[in-house]
Amino acid sequence: MAMSMLVPMFADLYLQNDDWKVFFVCIVITAFFGGALILSNNTATLEITARTAFLLIFLSWLTLAGFAALPFALSGLKMSFTDSFFEAMSGITTTGSTVITGLDTAPPGILLWRSILQWLGGIGIILMAMSILPFLNVGGMQIFRTELSEDEKVLPRTAQLASSIGFIYMILTLICIFCYMAVGLSSFDALTHAMTTISTGGFSTYDASFMHFESIGPSIVATVFMVMGGLPFVLYLKAVRGDLRPLFQDKQVHWYLIVLAATTIGLSLYLYYHDHHSLGESFLLSSFNIASIMTGTGYANADYEQWGIFAATLFFFLMLIGGCAGSTSCSIKIFRYQVLFAATSVQIRRLLYPHGVFIPHYNGKPLAPDVPLSVMSFFFMYGLCCAGVTMALTLVGLDFLEAVSGAVTAVSNVGPGLGEIGPAGNFQGLSDAAKWILSIGMLIGRLEIFAFLVMLSSHFWKR
Amino acid sequence: MAMSMLVPMFADLYLQNDDWKVFFVCIVITAFFGGALILSNNTATLEITARTAFLLIFLSWLTLAGFAALPFALSGLKMSFTDSFFEAMSGITTTGSTVITGLDTAPPGILLWRSILQWLGGIGIILMAMSILPFLNVGGMQIFRTELSEDEKVLPRTAQLASSIGFIYMILTLICIFCYMAVGLSSFDALTHAMTTISTGGFSTYDASFMHFESIGPSIVATVFMVMGGLPFVLYLKAVRGDLRPLFQDKQVHWYLIVLAATTIGLSLYLYYHDHHSLGESFLLSSFNIASIMTGTGYANADYEQWGIFAATLFFFLMLIGGCAGSTSCSIKIFRYQVLFAATSVQIRRLLYPHGVFIPHYNGKPLAPDVPLSVMSFFFMYGLCCAGVTMALTLVGLDFLEAVSGAVTAVSNVGPGLGEIGPAGNFQGLSDAAKWILSIGMLIGRLEIFAFLVMLSSHFWKR
Repeated sequence: MAMSMLVPMFADLYLQNDDWKVFFVCIVITAFFGGALILSNNTATLEITARTAFLLIFLSWLTLAGFAALPFALSGLKMSFTDSFFEAMSGITTTGSTVITGLDTAPPGILLWRSILQWLGGIGIILMAMSILPFLNVGGMQIFRTELSEDEKVLPRTAQLASSIGFIYMILTLICIFCYMAVGLSSFDALTHAMTTISTGGFSTYDASFMHFESIGPSIVATVFMVMGGLPFVLYLKAVRGDLRPLFQDKQVHWYLIVLAATTIGLSLYLYYHDHHSLGESFLLSSFNIASIMTGTGYANADYEQWGIFAATLFFFLMLIGGCAGSTSCSIKIFRYQVLFAATSVQIRRLLYPHGVFIPHYNGKPLAPDVPLSVMSFFFMYGLCCAGVTMALTLVGLDFLEAVSGAVTAVSNVGPGLGEIGPAGNFQGLSDAAKWILSIGMLIGRLEIFAFLVMLSSHFWKR
Repeated sequence: MAMSMLVPMFADLYLQNDDWKVFFVCIVITAFFGGALILSNNTATLEITARTAFLLIFLSWLTLAGFAALPFALSGLKMSFTDSFFEAMSGITTTGSTVITGLDTAPPGILLWRSILQWLGGIGIILMAMSILPFLNVGGMQIFRTELSEDEKVLPRTAQLASSIGFIYMILTLICIFCYMAVGLSSFDALTHAMTTISTGGFSTYDASFMHFESIGPSIVATVFMVMGGLPFVLYLKAVRGDLRPLFQDKQVHWYLIVLAATTIGLSLYLYYHDHHSLGESFLLSSFNIASIMTGTGYANADYEQWGIFAATLFFFLMLIGGCAGSTSCSIKIFRYQVLFAATSVQIRRLLYPHGVFIPHYNGKPLAPDVPLSVMSFFFMYGLCCAGVTMALTLVGLDFLEAVSGAVTAVSNVGPGLGEIGPAGNFQGLSDAAKWILSIGMLIGRLEIFAFLVMLSSHFWKR
């Protein structure tokens, strides 16, 4: 984290912005604590149990958000600690909700830092989803264990797998930068937006997000790379190694693209008939904003709340879908819906043929009995967390629309909600209490609910 | 149904209201079709498979609502067919949403008819939940099969069980009438309200619902009998036969009462500190309205939306809880939450001890592996149905608050939503399309989702 702060420091130094001193101070503080932790834990090999793994994940995200908040608090923007922590948490969880107004005139170092946070968060999420969650059986992620073990024959160590994925992530980012520049963005805008596109983060360097760009080029580039960010990165790795089949035959990828296409077509037709846009314009607006919300990026190239309640409600439910497992996107994710549909369809057949034996399948293989149970608990707890965050938000003064959409956008790590906190607004106007509640919501969502819930269990704290 | 129309006919005749002719016509029509059906199906013994049972349940509720709508359409109120069908569906599903304004001056026959519909709906629901759903494995109801089989040793035939439960239902209604009269209601008001209280229906004979009554007596009586209506009726039967233990030891009953008590205390404190009511008044208001919404009755003795967003949101989530299985209440129901919590807690222990073996329990007994799966599918499909109804409602012009709360109140068979359709409003102002969507929502909710979904499956229609 300290090393990554070097980038905005040099940027500010190069552009003769005084904030470089802030980053320097932050680097010293972060490096000091980081170094102390490394040195003090260097003595013995730690044995990591499931319990310590959960604690480690939770504390890592929390601590990283704390240190990531320093530049915001100390910079020329003079943000309060609450605002800084919110912005940092929104950054590393790739949520993309912002409390900063006046981004267009904000110092470049800070803008770069926001993008870097999301970029780091994005790769962190992929690695966590690939290397830790499947082995901890979190929310049905155990189905991806085989997929990974297959890989491990070729790449024996997780570290090597991680570096391969990291390499692909970097290449995709570079291609994205190049594409953004090709459609007319400045190199700075291309860099910052590429980092928050591929990570499905959603921070922009403009208050108006993609409404700032007048041409349609940037929106098209963003749509393509947001969709790519929502695909499982392990399949890219296989594709790069010459095996394109998994990418095109994976049922999760199929359904992800089908849901994207179906909702885009539906909304396009609605806009065409209802809002008198041309068919082409309707399609461009729909595809960009649907990809943005479904993958949890959170860019907006139009204030879709102006399209009427149907569109706004559609975006609300899209937040709850998400991308594929092992991607940078969050929320419930496509594979969980597939498992739930498979289990439900088995359920319906059992109702009709009480003596038949039916087993739910995923990706052509029968599901282990614990997987539907895992996914069920995940879905249930997801609902409960959203309800809890909603209730907490109404207690600190948000109205129904803001509370419900704020809770869902935070837990699903999307970005914009509806109403004041919608695509045309931001989170600046909320009370400090609301910002803390939302920060906690983002963290819970990013930890896939269970990596958080497990710590609330009495069993966790038993010796 | 034709026979039950005799009651409002004689009431109108006795009170010299011309509507008695309407009921007479309706009786002739209903009796003609009913008689024709009886005669035409009397020839052979029908073998009922799971498939025909589902179709029968669905068509029964639909047809009954159709015939029940006749008096509304033909009466002096001159309601449109849409309004009549909505009112009838809201009646027999014990939802309690109404499209009639001016109840205070409506003819007594119609008021009586509305109450009779809910009363019949209430007993219909109990009998369906006891005699059909457990054997069709709908949404985890199979756990109650043993409970019923234990009974069947004593009462060998379902018909005898049904008549015992019906008897208890009638006795409770009579006690409720007596209590209402004791606190000052007229015999007509006592009768109509008792019928819609014990059935957790919620139709009142006043536009202002319980706000009409100035004393607190009626509210207290209603609270007690609404809570009783949400308890499993089979436990009353056991209690009457001298075995009080099941009623007091049943975990579903425990949790039902705990949730009621906890939310009542929470809301009382909120009202006391936030709205400057006295503690006693806060408690009375909370207990009445929470019992009303959680059991799906839908009476209101205050416009709780005036209590602020926190209270309104709490009522919104309470709609999704419901009472016990085998009661007159609807929604997701307490036992499903217990199953989900049990499964989730097992899930969390599995995360911590990957090699341990844990089995979810319900009411002290291990759950069969298919039950959590059943309940999971139910919960998932419940969410999907609510989302679908919400989207449909936004398409026909409702705003977000009305669409979401309208969908949930319809599918959960509660009654009031939030906003225009809230406790102080009614459903009169909605478009015909919205009323049809809500009617379908009520029917789906009443059929416990799966008894409806099963018919959408391709397997259902295969020969």
